[in-house]
Amino acid sequence: MGDPKVISIKQSVFASNDAQAELLRRELKEKGIYLLNLMSSPGSGKTTTLTRLIDALKDSLKIGVMEADIDSDVDARTIAATGVKAIQLHTGGMCHLDAGMTRQGLEGLEPEELDLVVLENVGNLVCPAEFDTGAAANCMILSVPEGHDKPLKYPLMFQVCNAVIINKIDVLPYFDFDMDKCAEYIHMRNPKAKIFPISAKTGEGVADLAQWLKGEVAGWKQ
Amino acid sequence: MGDPKVISIKQSVFASNDAQAELLRRELKEKGIYLLNLMSSPGSGKTTTLTRLIDALKDSLKIGVMEADIDSDVDARTIAATGVKAIQLHTGGMCHLDAGMTRQGLEGLEPEELDLVVLENVGNLVCPAEFDTGAAANCMILSVPEGHDKPLKYPLMFQVCNAVIINKIDVLPYFDFDMDKCAEYIHMRNPKAKIFPISAKTGEGVADLAQWLKGEVAGWKQ
Repeated sequence: MGDPKVISIKQSVFASNDAQAELLRRELKEKGIYLLNLMSSPGSGKTTTLTRLIDALKDSLKIGVMEADIDSDVDARTIAATGVKAIQLHTGGMCHLDAGMTRQGLEGLEPEELDLVVLENVGNLVCPAEFDTGAAANCMILSVPEGHDKPLKYPLMFQVCNAVIINKIDVLPYFDFDMDKCAEYIHMRNPKAKIFPISAKTGEGVADLAQWLKGEVAGWKQ
Repeated sequence: MGDPKVISIKQSVFASNDAQAELLRRELKEKGIYLLNLMSSPGSGKTTTLTRLIDALKDSLKIGVMEADIDSDVDARTIAATGVKAIQLHTGGMCHLDAGMTRQGLEGLEPEELDLVVLENVGNLVCPAEFDTGAAANCMILSVPEGHDKPLKYPLMFQVCNAVIINKIDVLPYFDFDMDKCAEYIHMRNPKAKIFPISAKTGEGVADLAQWLKGEVAGWKQ
């Protein structure tokens, strides 16, 4: 296995991101490709969580990953080591991906034979929430050390997410994190959001998350 | 003590943020007000660190705080409880502050008699790094759970910071965080950056940080 492919994506030229996102979503639906937009703060454990999810799903689904980062290809190397198709997207300083940029990434990934493509968005709780990427679903990771009050401070991010993964539950004893309050705040922003407490480090809770995602992908293909 | 004042700041109308930032910095220098721009990811402990710093400095410096957030006034309440002048800035969804927005905040704070004003920027490692606020210095907090590789992934943020606070060192035993590697990566981005490992929870390391900041403020007033 060689080095992961690196693609420098350019600012989109489209006036309406929402229209581009709808178009991309429709095309992906026709091809039976489920695109998951995974967002979080820097350091919440996106890549480790993804590695665990891939291990749980790779026997039943054909998976591809697009790692978006301002710089570095550390994450794409980690993901490529799991054996799935992985490419690195460099955003050239941009703080989010929109649908046009996601399309550029997909052209590089060549996802035609894949069931599930995960877009690991730029680590940022603000800007990525504002741009529909064309994904079938948005998912975010909030990690225990960040605190249970984040849905109060970053309302849009929690509002647009179909699922919230609460990662690093293995360190719950060392932080003042109130899981019930966190769930209450998340549902204040989005009453329908699924919540998955996990530890990507120990693997706890990952099976439930994988089960949910498998169901989502199956539903998308119908 | 009543509720903290809340100011909704508007997008700046100035074409050149750099010129506005230089102007603001010059005005603050003439008034002997040291403005510190404090940045970090969501949940790295900005407010707790600030509470500790205020406790260490409030007998020798007159301090004011501007808490920038997309929503909520949780942080301004926490800071106001320390007895210093605190206001909340609502950015209306914007992911950073620029010099014009910082000026709007300062007009609300009325800092004339203050020695030190801390601007707690929006929790985000990307966008705030791109905008000079007019501050005397930029400082960021990286917390241990986020990982030591962050200077590789968010180069500009580390490049523009005069000081990097490494917070949550009390949980070092529970995370794979390499302090030496972190310092090496930080200095790769900015060889002159000061590094302060602290625990805002236990207070460890805060005295050194306070001492440094006191020296900076004294130097600014000369």
